[in-house]
Amino acid sequence: MSTTVSQISQHVGQEVELKGWCYNFRSSGKIFFLQFRDGTGRVQVVYSKADLPSDQWDLLDALRLESSVIVRGVVKEDTRAPLGFELNGVSVQVVQLAQEGYPIGKKEHGPEFLLDNRHLWLRAESQWAVQRVRDRIITSTYEWFHENGFIKFDTPILTPTSCEGTTELFEMDYFGDEVELSSMEHTAGEAQLRQEHRETKAYLAQSGQLYLEAGIMSLGRAFDFGPVFRAEKSKTRRHLTEFWMMDAEAAYVEHEGNMAIQEALVCRIVEDVLAHCAYELKVLERDVEPLKKVQAPFIHLTHAEATKKLRELGSDIGERADLGADDETLLTQQYDRPIFIEKYPAEVKAFYMKRDPQDDTRVLNNDLLAPEGYGEIIGGSQREDDYETLMKRIHDHGLDPKPFDWYLDLRRYGSVPHSGFGYGLERIVAWTCGLHHVRETIPFPRLVNRITP
Amino acid sequence: MSTTVSQISQHVGQEVELKGWCYNFRSSGKIFFLQFRDGTGRVQVVYSKADLPSDQWDLLDALRLESSVIVRGVVKEDTRAPLGFELNGVSVQVVQLAQEGYPIGKKEHGPEFLLDNRHLWLRAESQWAVQRVRDRIITSTYEWFHENGFIKFDTPILTPTSCEGTTELFEMDYFGDEVELSSMEHTAGEAQLRQEHRETKAYLAQSGQLYLEAGIMSLGRAFDFGPVFRAEKSKTRRHLTEFWMMDAEAAYVEHEGNMAIQEALVCRIVEDVLAHCAYELKVLERDVEPLKKVQAPFIHLTHAEATKKLRELGSDIGERADLGADDETLLTQQYDRPIFIEKYPAEVKAFYMKRDPQDDTRVLNNDLLAPEGYGEIIGGSQREDDYETLMKRIHDHGLDPKPFDWYLDLRRYGSVPHSGFGYGLERIVAWTCGLHHVRETIPFPRLVNRITP
Repeated sequence: MSTTVSQISQHVGQEVELKGWCYNFRSSGKIFFLQFRDGTGRVQVVYSKADLPSDQWDLLDALRLESSVIVRGVVKEDTRAPLGFELNGVSVQVVQLAQEGYPIGKKEHGPEFLLDNRHLWLRAESQWAVQRVRDRIITSTYEWFHENGFIKFDTPILTPTSCEGTTELFEMDYFGDEVELSSMEHTAGEAQLRQEHRETKAYLAQSGQLYLEAGIMSLGRAFDFGPVFRAEKSKTRRHLTEFWMMDAEAAYVEHEGNMAIQEALVCRIVEDVLAHCAYELKVLERDVEPLKKVQAPFIHLTHAEATKKLRELGSDIGERADLGADDETLLTQQYDRPIFIEKYPAEVKAFYMKRDPQDDTRVLNNDLLAPEGYGEIIGGSQREDDYETLMKRIHDHGLDPKPFDWYLDLRRYGSVPHSGFGYGLERIVAWTCGLHHVRETIPFPRLVNRITP
Repeated sequence: MSTTVSQISQHVGQEVELKGWCYNFRSSGKIFFLQFRDGTGRVQVVYSKADLPSDQWDLLDALRLESSVIVRGVVKEDTRAPLGFELNGVSVQVVQLAQEGYPIGKKEHGPEFLLDNRHLWLRAESQWAVQRVRDRIITSTYEWFHENGFIKFDTPILTPTSCEGTTELFEMDYFGDEVELSSMEHTAGEAQLRQEHRETKAYLAQSGQLYLEAGIMSLGRAFDFGPVFRAEKSKTRRHLTEFWMMDAEAAYVEHEGNMAIQEALVCRIVEDVLAHCAYELKVLERDVEPLKKVQAPFIHLTHAEATKKLRELGSDIGERADLGADDETLLTQQYDRPIFIEKYPAEVKAFYMKRDPQDDTRVLNNDLLAPEGYGEIIGGSQREDDYETLMKRIHDHGLDPKPFDWYLDLRRYGSVPHSGFGYGLERIVAWTCGLHHVRETIPFPRLVNRITP
């Protein structure tokens, strides 16, 4: 019976066939131990020279790392095995004998070497585990949002302008003069309309938020989840130039309700990772005790409280300054649960955030910091929903109101209180997996100095 | 009790509060009929002047389209209503009275006008319905893949080269000389490594397939689902410059197995849309009878059979030519189920497709055509897994093998038979919703002449 490693517990005592790869092996000369992997898991297949036709033994003897193999064997329970099972090998078929010199060995490799060989490094059990946890986080996110009335709404990547100024944007030509308009237009009126709206530059989106706000005026609650781009030259363990962002937005939800949604989502993600990825977390040597403490209610601090506490802890942060990465790390070490930091000074935040009615110099926003030094994983806020106020903010931030005209329409026609937030997928993966650098959390990381393979 | 339109069937006879927008209204002077929508659905609220305080009636009297409102009323069954319920209005609160002159009225608008006002057009019930069907298709896709052992694997958008030549690619600067390498490097060796790999141009991905092939060598089965880009100047009802593509790939799956996966996935999607989106399809006036006929087994034709039949039907297609859109339309009109067209001439297909062992001039590929004239929704193939053969194909296609070196590694180390396919989300949405043009299927369409709003 052909099956997968993930299913072998259902076949104890039976002979099964598995299709996959040779992850590792060793031989005593009489017994051959094959570490077999097939994408669903890893299991040891034990072959005895005495029981095997000699041509089969010769195949094993000539095997190389990462060769593709089809194995047959009888499943038996073995409490010493990671999965609790191993196979008594009956036969082996080599689908392709790997070339000699598989680049990634058991020795330590530097990060640049591993990233150059990312297409192969992905096969390492640690990297396999990270991608499986990433998939679980994505799945839990979709499930939670759909259970709570949110609709997926795919916002555009190619945009004519940016949400928050034009720094750190990737720019490109978008047809422009190349387009032979005359041959495509059917009427003079159409041609004129298009002429007016034709842009020659496009920018890669940094966030889908503004578009998502248009979406919820139709759908009530919506989320998007896709790649975003920052042409940021900074090189830190928390930054990629291309990364996956989940943005959510809800009509008739205010600041407190917004944080309740974030709390429930994060609790669900961590609960599901613990429940479904126990083996993966073990592979990653992730201490699960801190993750088990991620329970509601999370800690709430105002920005004023947070900066006060930080100064007591030795930080030189200013009273109205944004928190730096070091400040976040320091703060998260004081608590064993995630921390909401609310109501930042308006001057360090974006124009679209609604002001706190109790202190007009602050906004109804929150960051959410993950424990154990991981820091910011979510940023959110209630949005300014008053037309006149929003227009004033755009002017005060020195922005041109023209490209925001459609966004202002959302306040002209049926404006409602609404709030939203975004999470950075790679940061949540890094936190749950216990990884130091986000570059291991995405299949093919893009960094300021890397766009290959 | 505060609830949503989607939940009112559970509150018959009770007074409920709903938060949303005024979709439409009419008044007899004594009775006010408010078409209320909240993103989860639409319901009529009927107010009687005799039963309402006069200030409340005045609010209704002054109401404008798309104003945001909170309504209270008693739920009653009404078999004439689309949902089967309406509300006896008790009170109304106007959250924001929309400005006069909401641009989208009941009269017919041209497509350019609607696209210019896409942020508002999305509120039209037809557009709301399309986005809900789109969400259902996305959800069914995730569910089906996860139930069948596929892991989400996010392939990169920013790529150093293209999959199939460099035409129709969006190109951009990727840091290049701007990067101050000296200040960032820690060792001379590191700097040298990076210098070698540094690229100054990036291209937006047209497909994640090649990267996904690396993914399955770790994960066994994987899919990606994200935006892709084609800088195509063609302007047809089936093309966008930015659209969402789902790519799936599986190790140890050959041509026949690949088609079985596609058939099961498409059946599931259509089944779920019929089961969950009955109201949305009704709004769209979609005839559901053709969708009900989408059942396994699908029709199978070889490319040779298809071209023969097409010529009998009056097409002038050549024996070894690719099918054009008109050919696809003609063919789909002959059957009431989707059609697999298999084994195209190698010369019209990509270098990575495996040749048919029974006819080396053809490849083990398939397109899948949706019925009712919709045409191609999926393209797939078994991939060439032999190193020497693949290298020859790269040369024969006039491609530079250097950027494919990492891809060739997949054949050097543990190559396996494998297959995959990609679907265009917008084409599946257009088909299931019965839309003529894909531009209505995505929240903010990007066309050769449009990048706004």
